[in-house]
Amino acid sequence: MPTNGRCLLASRPVGLPTPANWSYVEDEAPEPAEGEALVRVDYLSLDPAMRAWMNDVRSYVPPVQIGEVMRAAGVGTVIASRSGAVREGDCVQGVFGVQNYAAVDAGGLTPVDTSLAPAPAHLGVLGISGLTAYVGLLDIGRPEPGQTVVVSGAAGSVGSVAGQIARIKGARAVGIAGGREKCDWLVDELGFDAAVDYKAGELRAQLREAAPDRVDVFFDNVGGEILDTVLLRLARGARIVISGAISQYNADAPPPGPSNYMQLLVSRATMAGFVIFDHFARFPQARADLAEWLASGELKHHEDVVHARVDQFPEVFLRLFRGENLGKLVQALDA
Amino acid sequence: MPTNGRCLLASRPVGLPTPANWSYVEDEAPEPAEGEALVRVDYLSLDPAMRAWMNDVRSYVPPVQIGEVMRAAGVGTVIASRSGAVREGDCVQGVFGVQNYAAVDAGGLTPVDTSLAPAPAHLGVLGISGLTAYVGLLDIGRPEPGQTVVVSGAAGSVGSVAGQIARIKGARAVGIAGGREKCDWLVDELGFDAAVDYKAGELRAQLREAAPDRVDVFFDNVGGEILDTVLLRLARGARIVISGAISQYNADAPPPGPSNYMQLLVSRATMAGFVIFDHFARFPQARADLAEWLASGELKHHEDVVHARVDQFPEVFLRLFRGENLGKLVQALDA
Repeated sequence: MPTNGRCLLASRPVGLPTPANWSYVEDEAPEPAEGEALVRVDYLSLDPAMRAWMNDVRSYVPPVQIGEVMRAAGVGTVIASRSGAVREGDCVQGVFGVQNYAAVDAGGLTPVDTSLAPAPAHLGVLGISGLTAYVGLLDIGRPEPGQTVVVSGAAGSVGSVAGQIARIKGARAVGIAGGREKCDWLVDELGFDAAVDYKAGELRAQLREAAPDRVDVFFDNVGGEILDTVLLRLARGARIVISGAISQYNADAPPPGPSNYMQLLVSRATMAGFVIFDHFARFPQARADLAEWLASGELKHHEDVVHARVDQFPEVFLRLFRGENLGKLVQALDA
Repeated sequence: MPTNGRCLLASRPVGLPTPANWSYVEDEAPEPAEGEALVRVDYLSLDPAMRAWMNDVRSYVPPVQIGEVMRAAGVGTVIASRSGAVREGDCVQGVFGVQNYAAVDAGGLTPVDTSLAPAPAHLGVLGISGLTAYVGLLDIGRPEPGQTVVVSGAAGSVGSVAGQIARIKGARAVGIAGGREKCDWLVDELGFDAAVDYKAGELRAQLREAAPDRVDVFFDNVGGEILDTVLLRLARGARIVISGAISQYNADAPPPGPSNYMQLLVSRATMAGFVIFDHFARFPQARADLAEWLASGELKHHEDVVHARVDQFPEVFLRLFRGENLGKLVQALDA
């Protein structure tokens, strides 16, 4: 069997993770058992939520245990199958972990149709990121045509899709992102109606200008000061969708929550959290719509694909928290 | 015309109000204009929300302006009418302000049926407090039989009704209140299933014991640490109803918000604010149900009626923030 490089969780980070929080080991790729397939992992999905999985706290999935392979979704190629569900050479998606090879239950694999879009896009716009944007925006946020939708982390994997869906559905799409370059990209390439650069200061004034009719739906991936500022700009009956809180994941202690939460009362607004894995029933429709919008060109996709060896995962992952990625961050696993 | 004592807003408080934030003046009771009635104010409704009306900030009603009579709901007696809508001697309810006499549009007056309950109860269980509890719990919180409903400020005017409605609807009613006496009252008199004394410390442990199956609905009148602690104990799909935040109203600066708000995501929960004045359409049904439960004895009412002159309003009002009232705080206006 080939050599299998693997990143294991070595210790729980306090604050921002460092490479020392993982250990790298090499052993032999496993033999697939009956019903399993052996998958060579070609692409890793790098997501802010992975930071939360490193903490030993109750969440929507169990934490990764010390000594376990770091959890990650990926796209790979079946190189051996002991199941009728998949065949050698199939391109598949699953939760493979940060390693070169995974022996997994073949029944749990999702086939990847690369005629729709290249493999990395199946981790972004056609993967959990795109599904999160779709369900969060349309089922939880429920914008109506002409309403204003504000998206934070708008240049990220989920936000960039959420804002575009808002635009496709006839809403005014306003993105919040860090830096002029990202903001220009949102407006010029993705067709957002306006973008707010939170690094340029005067967030509240910028938001007032970008959302003159207040905010009907806020799709929040960031939390912190951005959430608190948008709370001051809600329209009556606004919906806040809590998709993530990347500004909070590396805090040593629980950071202060949104001071302005009583604006929920003033504005008769709702703040709702959701977890995409509760919404499997919506995936076929969501995937069909996303694929159609991709095909028509209404929806743009962008993956920031970084080629690196599996032992370089920590460095690539940490780009997320420096805001270095544009669109979906994907690690292509070099041999 | 008789002398009309009136409390005017004199200055905007920083932190807890003091009597100096109001000025007392006496003038002659006004002449009612065509279509108006002159009402002698017999009872004032004293509510935590009145503190928020003293701030010069955007809220669901305009702030009281400096020099204006302090806004308050009340029950009174029509002593002169220039409208066919009410007659001399009628007992009526309205927003009369902190004064002995008010000339008001007779069409906006609500008749008070004292055969249902004594007049002060029409400011509590049969008034805005009871309606807030009813709509907030049943329409926003939507508890199902067997679910756990936690109410903060449970010994207050809204909370004491909300918890009882939860019990009537077959939910497990858990109250959070300050002090053993209030907690005993909730369980022994009002039929709550359990009560948590936040002043006794160990709030999280007490809550774990009182709500072993976690919290499906949290009806929050208090905010602050209590909200943050309940966030850690949510059941999946929980609903948090933001009815008020008495712990926050006197803060000098915006206090930190709920640190644990990301539990909304973990628990797929919703936090919603509402304002009772949006729900007029529900009032007839709500009033009918509340009156029926009162008549059957399923719903207990309790008003803390303080007899005092109108110039003593500041001292009576401030009892709210010392947690001194049990049930609805009402000031009966002595001559």
